[in-house]
Amino acid sequence: MPAPLEFYFDFSSPYGYFAAERIDALAGKYDRAVNWHPVLLGAIFKQTGMAPLTQIPIKGEYSTLDFSRTARHMKIPFVMPTTFPIASQAPARVMLWIAGHNAEAAKAYAKVAYRAFYVDGFDISKPDTAAALAAGLGHDRNAAMAAIDDPLFKAALKSEVEQAIANGVFGSPFVIIDGEPFWGVDRLAMMEEWLKTGGW
Amino acid sequence: MPAPLEFYFDFSSPYGYFAAERIDALAGKYDRAVNWHPVLLGAIFKQTGMAPLTQIPIKGEYSTLDFSRTARHMKIPFVMPTTFPIASQAPARVMLWIAGHNAEAAKAYAKVAYRAFYVDGFDISKPDTAAALAAGLGHDRNAAMAAIDDPLFKAALKSEVEQAIANGVFGSPFVIIDGEPFWGVDRLAMMEEWLKTGGW
Repeated sequence: MPAPLEFYFDFSSPYGYFAAERIDALAGKYDRAVNWHPVLLGAIFKQTGMAPLTQIPIKGEYSTLDFSRTARHMKIPFVMPTTFPIASQAPARVMLWIAGHNAEAAKAYAKVAYRAFYVDGFDISKPDTAAALAAGLGHDRNAAMAAIDDPLFKAALKSEVEQAIANGVFGSPFVIIDGEPFWGVDRLAMMEEWLKTGGW
Repeated sequence: MPAPLEFYFDFSSPYGYFAAERIDALAGKYDRAVNWHPVLLGAIFKQTGMAPLTQIPIKGEYSTLDFSRTARHMKIPFVMPTTFPIASQAPARVMLWIAGHNAEAAKAYAKVAYRAFYVDGFDISKPDTAAALAAGLGHDRNAAMAAIDDPLFKAALKSEVEQAIANGVFGSPFVIIDGEPFWGVDRLAMMEEWLKTGGW
């Protein structure tokens, strides 16, 4: 079995959302699984000195235009949230809690949380909302709420972020295929070619 | 006649070099001309607070890997220069001097200067080198040297940079097609689709 793809994303990242909508299908075409890793760009940016896209002068306006243009191009529903960026600890910890018993259910939660934020406009940074979305998928609402403040899942998320940085992750989405790093949803075609050919 | 593409690049930018090798052919397929604009990322980064790619922790290592990977993918010769990034005032001013009498000759100079830097390892930031490359194309060497320190071409380059910033340019390459901005050589396929379809 070839190694799974390692997929890093922040719940606050529009390009991460677009990649989340496509990465499993892409990998599946080449008999690859995907390990999903929620990370916190805020913590990563402290290492790199970078800033959220929309807060960078000039580049911010381009980014806002490009989010919507990319969504239309990929035919993915997208409405720019009024609150952006958001802190994504709550959905990330709920996801890690679900992943503790079921990795596939954790992916399903991630997709639902992304759509709640980027299609329906819910502020998924709020613990109530992050937990309610888990409840909608059949998970225990109170246990989800508790996970958000549980030192165990705080530590698990911190560990994901530290491992991501150690693996060279500096943005979202970020995908590692057999050790080869790819940054950005605009590299999906290149990733596919890499999977198909084994690299160049 | 449809409007020409506006192509902004810094002579120090590897992705700008890759785009310079392809942009005219791409535009030509759709009966478009291309206006080439040398700019100075250093001046632009002062507006945005950004930094040269290779100087950003973590992202820098990825960028170095991606320069070579992209070159191999596009089948463009590329050797990472030992001095990088460079100040690009000298080749930019020589180019604007040539453009003053012949826009096509100015493009030819830009391509030669890029290849001198990214294939043959010449430090094109040096006035001597920037002028010698012009001489190699049949231009007057002393006049090229003089242009580098001429207040006229200093002002012309400053004006290019100011206009670029006013047009939303924050990186290299940057292409504007009928008012629509595209950043990055990894958007060439998207640009082609935009040219083909008129946008989405």
